[in-house]
Amino acid sequence: MMALDEFLAPYRIENGQAFRLSDHDPADTHELGIEKADAKDYLRVGIERLTELQEMLYAQNRWSVLLIFQAIDAAGKDSAIKHVMSGVNPQGVQVYSFKRPSAEELDHDFMWRTSRNLPERGRIGVFNRSYYEEVLVARVHREILQAQQLPPTLISPGIFDERLEDIAHFERYLARQGTLILKFFLNVSKKEQKKRFLKRLDNPEKNWKFEAGDLKERAYWDDYMSAYEKAIQATAAPHAPWYVVPADNKWFTRLVVAGAIVDSMTRLDLHFPVVPEETLAQFAQYRRQLEEE
Amino acid sequence: MMALDEFLAPYRIENGQAFRLSDHDPADTHELGIEKADAKDYLRVGIERLTELQEMLYAQNRWSVLLIFQAIDAAGKDSAIKHVMSGVNPQGVQVYSFKRPSAEELDHDFMWRTSRNLPERGRIGVFNRSYYEEVLVARVHREILQAQQLPPTLISPGIFDERLEDIAHFERYLARQGTLILKFFLNVSKKEQKKRFLKRLDNPEKNWKFEAGDLKERAYWDDYMSAYEKAIQATAAPHAPWYVVPADNKWFTRLVVAGAIVDSMTRLDLHFPVVPEETLAQFAQYRRQLEEE
Repeated sequence: MMALDEFLAPYRIENGQAFRLSDHDPADTHELGIEKADAKDYLRVGIERLTELQEMLYAQNRWSVLLIFQAIDAAGKDSAIKHVMSGVNPQGVQVYSFKRPSAEELDHDFMWRTSRNLPERGRIGVFNRSYYEEVLVARVHREILQAQQLPPTLISPGIFDERLEDIAHFERYLARQGTLILKFFLNVSKKEQKKRFLKRLDNPEKNWKFEAGDLKERAYWDDYMSAYEKAIQATAAPHAPWYVVPADNKWFTRLVVAGAIVDSMTRLDLHFPVVPEETLAQFAQYRRQLEEE
Repeated sequence: MMALDEFLAPYRIENGQAFRLSDHDPADTHELGIEKADAKDYLRVGIERLTELQEMLYAQNRWSVLLIFQAIDAAGKDSAIKHVMSGVNPQGVQVYSFKRPSAEELDHDFMWRTSRNLPERGRIGVFNRSYYEEVLVARVHREILQAQQLPPTLISPGIFDERLEDIAHFERYLARQGTLILKFFLNVSKKEQKKRFLKRLDNPEKNWKFEAGDLKERAYWDDYMSAYEKAIQATAAPHAPWYVVPADNKWFTRLVVAGAIVDSMTRLDLHFPVVPEETLAQFAQYRRQLEEE
């Protein structure tokens, strides 16, 4: 069996300069040999390992883990979060979905609402969408900027490049503070999105997921892809990598996501806190005290 | 009477590279001619103007103002905040004092607790101490780092320079988001601090202000001054200037602080929102409707 980091290498972007989204195939299932039939076993093993790592993360209380999920509609964000994070102790995991900003949120800087909900040390925080929306949907629909209450003089021609620079700086700061940051772009094809939208229309149990707005956004496909490409180019870094996850096959998406988390957490110096000798020496006395009760 | 910006120029630091604290005299009262006797009038005029500016800031709801006060004990932070901000509508002003971080706060990045309390658009936020403590007291007493729950590998030799870089980037981000940032270092002399500590010991009404810890910190005077100098050098910028305010004379401190706020807020494009013609055209009808009730 191949090493995990080798399996992940084609999807992990640490340096955005040469990144081109067109080099990435949404239907990729890693030709080197994982089969759908084996995927379930691999995923189960991955989640077991993740559970162990999370326990040490929590006990050690030094690092925090931030997982950011970004994608176009129907790429499978919810499903990836559900399948990879289920089984992990919910006391150690906090999931936040960021929707349209509230009036209170618009009255602050654009990272305010996400910053407040960053994971504490010892926890895994999952952002279903994030501050990246401010350089994605806002870039595709510039009129959104007008609703953001910004002083007009600050809406500069380079505003999205400035935002990307600010995001990159902020993520470096977080990494220095002890946050492991992993960013997942679920890369679904336009063809597969169509298939999934049709399923939502045809299958009564999935009807609730369909929104007419999603169809409208589909018309901006190329603009969105260009915005994602620019975001990844500007913010991929060794301390805050992007994973461009092939998303036409959900079983494969989950495998890459789970693998990436396990691989990166394994590289942290996680271990259960060591009880000092002096304290251990007192254990005999505590034991006696309890027994003599 | 001299122009406000000319009066403030010696105290405003926009570029830290050449900054030396020793060039600044804590007892300076601006030899060009303001007398203590006139100071009260100037301050009153300044506060009136500040009140007008704050009303426009609030009505316009675009910009926010962040005032950061940093200083050694007994330099007069509380007193400056009290005398300059009293009279301004408290609905538009939020003052936060940052003391020793709580366990919850230590479980987050060091700017988390301040970021949550940043002023909304339309408001003036006052920070009595701030994230700068993390490059001041923590630099003087490095053992504080050990209590911060950081992963040990991240406590690098350059950690304070990294923090200063992160702070500078964060302030540029905030400025781009519409926050006017003004930072005040109240520059008191060691001699004047001694005088004020003695007053706290001698005057029963001031006894409550004296803490033995303050006297201990006085022994680290030079280390603190060096830490302040480095912080100002690394983070002074046109969009986030430091004011090095002579603080041996409280009447003069207040004048510089009030002047700096008024001067900078005047440069924002503050104005009451203009009601559009169409809406104004409807006013006659609304008036009629009310009168016919």
